[in-house]
Amino acid sequence: MKKSIEVCLSTQLIDLYNLENKYVVIIDIFRATSTITTALSQQIPAILPTADLETCRSYQNQDFFLAGERNGIKPDDFDFGNSPLSYLTNTSFKKVAMTTTNGTLAIDKSKQAKKIIIGSFLNLETVSKYLSQQQENTLLFCAGWRGMPNLEDTLFAGAILNRIGNEFEFANDNCFMAKEIYETHQKDLLTFLSTANHYQRLQKLGHEADIEFCLTINKYDILPVLKGKYIVAESLN
Amino acid sequence: MKKSIEVCLSTQLIDLYNLENKYVVIIDIFRATSTITTALSQQIPAILPTADLETCRSYQNQDFFLAGERNGIKPDDFDFGNSPLSYLTNTSFKKVAMTTTNGTLAIDKSKQAKKIIIGSFLNLETVSKYLSQQQENTLLFCAGWRGMPNLEDTLFAGAILNRIGNEFEFANDNCFMAKEIYETHQKDLLTFLSTANHYQRLQKLGHEADIEFCLTINKYDILPVLKGKYIVAESLN
Repeated sequence: MKKSIEVCLSTQLIDLYNLENKYVVIIDIFRATSTITTALSQQIPAILPTADLETCRSYQNQDFFLAGERNGIKPDDFDFGNSPLSYLTNTSFKKVAMTTTNGTLAIDKSKQAKKIIIGSFLNLETVSKYLSQQQENTLLFCAGWRGMPNLEDTLFAGAILNRIGNEFEFANDNCFMAKEIYETHQKDLLTFLSTANHYQRLQKLGHEADIEFCLTINKYDILPVLKGKYIVAESLN
Repeated sequence: MKKSIEVCLSTQLIDLYNLENKYVVIIDIFRATSTITTALSQQIPAILPTADLETCRSYQNQDFFLAGERNGIKPDDFDFGNSPLSYLTNTSFKKVAMTTTNGTLAIDKSKQAKKIIIGSFLNLETVSKYLSQQQENTLLFCAGWRGMPNLEDTLFAGAILNRIGNEFEFANDNCFMAKEIYETHQKDLLTFLSTANHYQRLQKLGHEADIEFCLTINKYDILPVLKGKYIVAESLN
């Protein structure tokens, strides 16, 4: 039997899915999963996703950086916000405790999965190639924004399906929507996204450089996966 | 200020929206809103949406037809299933008590709205023209399937946006997705939908004729709206 793939468009919808025995790809393009991919490519050995600011803060006196945002803004006492760019100059080999509005919630809601993988345009090819090699039913889980679907996460799900969709049976209608939207706009994602709501929200907060970076394709050959409590880079063959 | 429009992709997502002071268009193409539009065009004076089979049955001994389905199938003791075609030969001037899996749930979840309108491809132009004439913030509410977004309802939201979207400010990203998907496939909705899951589910149940009928554009010049407990045809200028 052909392996199956489905797309969940937001955290509000995930309870309708059965995650058992599935590989789940967490997608929060602006910016959590882009930031995780970048951080693990820049000396950070492991990331501990935490559900809220207080839990994250409880790691302050240990061997951790604190990273996160609420409504796109970094708390004053945190080392990092949610910008992937802030990790580019990191030279410390130190773990990160992280909390974000949508991304860490999506990870938390995926605990039933057989395996949790972190996807972003930065490691699109690596994720696609990995899924292609596995014989696993897969769920592409768009974190969305505050429970709502958003354009950038849906586009990324479409980018995966554009590359390896023909190896799977499409298990729900979202697959068709995501693939279509991506294929129509793949030549200029930035222009298309500039009309979208979450983009404009981030732009107002001064995060244009982040946005452009998060849309860079295949910058890192890294596969972040959840191992126990931590997100770490899996060794690739 | 420009009036705003937004799209909700399924009943599972509607709690994230504020419906107060908004016009809500209920969309359940296969088949509840297509069936309601057809029934009100064929002698039926009013439709009473009911949440479940038992409530619907409680009208059995009164001046009502019973109509509805669960999982696409008509209960034995009901007068109508959820097929719009079954109303084409109706000549009785009698009200209908109706319950369906997704459509009546969507109506029930829209009670906070300023006005509830029933939309389908059968009355696409009438709904579009009406919304165009109003100065109202509008929500296009796709019922979806068991809480999940589906292709046909999303396509209809896109068809509305294709016609009158430029008169509104798009309040969420779903607007862009829906409009795009529709514009890419408007020349052959049936072929595109034949790849989709809900279509295949209905096809397996022998409802191909319904599907084709539900995709007929502008067959009826009628605007079904909720007035008190009943859905009735609003007089148009």
